[in-house]
Amino acid sequence: MRKSFGAKPMLYPMPVLIIGTYDENGVANAMNAAWGGISESTEISICVDDEHKTIANVLKRGAFTVSIADKENVIAADYVGVVSGNKEPNKIAKCGWTPVKSELVDAPYFEELPMTLECELISFTEETCRLVGRIVNVSADERILGEDGKISLEKFSPITYDPVHHTYRTIGDVVGKAFSDGLQLK
Amino acid sequence: MRKSFGAKPMLYPMPVLIIGTYDENGVANAMNAAWGGISESTEISICVDDEHKTIANVLKRGAFTVSIADKENVIAADYVGVVSGNKEPNKIAKCGWTPVKSELVDAPYFEELPMTLECELISFTEETCRLVGRIVNVSADERILGEDGKISLEKFSPITYDPVHHTYRTIGDVVGKAFSDGLQLK
Repeated sequence: MRKSFGAKPMLYPMPVLIIGTYDENGVANAMNAAWGGISESTEISICVDDEHKTIANVLKRGAFTVSIADKENVIAADYVGVVSGNKEPNKIAKCGWTPVKSELVDAPYFEELPMTLECELISFTEETCRLVGRIVNVSADERILGEDGKISLEKFSPITYDPVHHTYRTIGDVVGKAFSDGLQLK
Repeated sequence: MRKSFGAKPMLYPMPVLIIGTYDENGVANAMNAAWGGISESTEISICVDDEHKTIANVLKRGAFTVSIADKENVIAADYVGVVSGNKEPNKIAKCGWTPVKSELVDAPYFEELPMTLECELISFTEETCRLVGRIVNVSADERILGEDGKISLEKFSPITYDPVHHTYRTIGDVVGKAFSDGLQLK
């Protein structure tokens, strides 16, 4: 038997995306978004209400970054989701985060968040809340790289948002190999 | 120091979405997609190339389901991503999955996959590969519900796709409380 929960935005896993932007004075802002994901090979789409300072900033600067919230930054990552940059001018300082200007796009990333997608604005549609960015580069702090030079989940603990229980969880163990395990059913 | 990886579709976590559809003869199909996510409060968007049988089916039937791949189904979930429904008529049988018609939309879910979003087609745009569905209902098998009647991650192990190492991983431990932990920085 199945139980119905109605029309709800429930999915597993959901990301915890930290969107970094500058305002007209070069003040960095960050917000937390879970409704989004990769939408093409070099594109990310995120639903962001136009009342957020992030949208005013993105429309002025034509750029944003998306950093992946991790276990070490869970409190600050939650904070930037519950407090508005319109009301709290010291939002980033309260997080203890250090904004660094991207070399590629007109937006900041935060030194403490070790993995970032640097994005140019493609479009924002008010009616659908859809912010679309072209991924120009993905960068990662060397401290989260494995010996093979790739991002290592032994050194980096991205978090995921649980839309049912409103908790943050880490990513767990390897249970399969993509483009490989399924071949045994061919 | 940061290392740059270029313009890549890398994000953590990424979902493993199993899209269920019927063709014109009522034959069920399934495919695996990682580029997508919730895009509004009752909407999901997924990038699906129009060469997939899924798109022909969705355009004919005006509906699809999205089930969450889990640890128990990792081999079959990978299989439906590597084998095309255009070439393998017995795709679902090879998975060992049992298609069941949704009561709400003209698409099948699979009994073995315990959590499903039932969706009506809103739009598909060939140029951008963007398939958008209205979430009509989320349903879950009673076997994955906790004592509170909600989906329990103690009983259900959704998998996530690692775009760097091409593995599937489970969701891990609780490390924070959303809309709560951040309040201590206010």
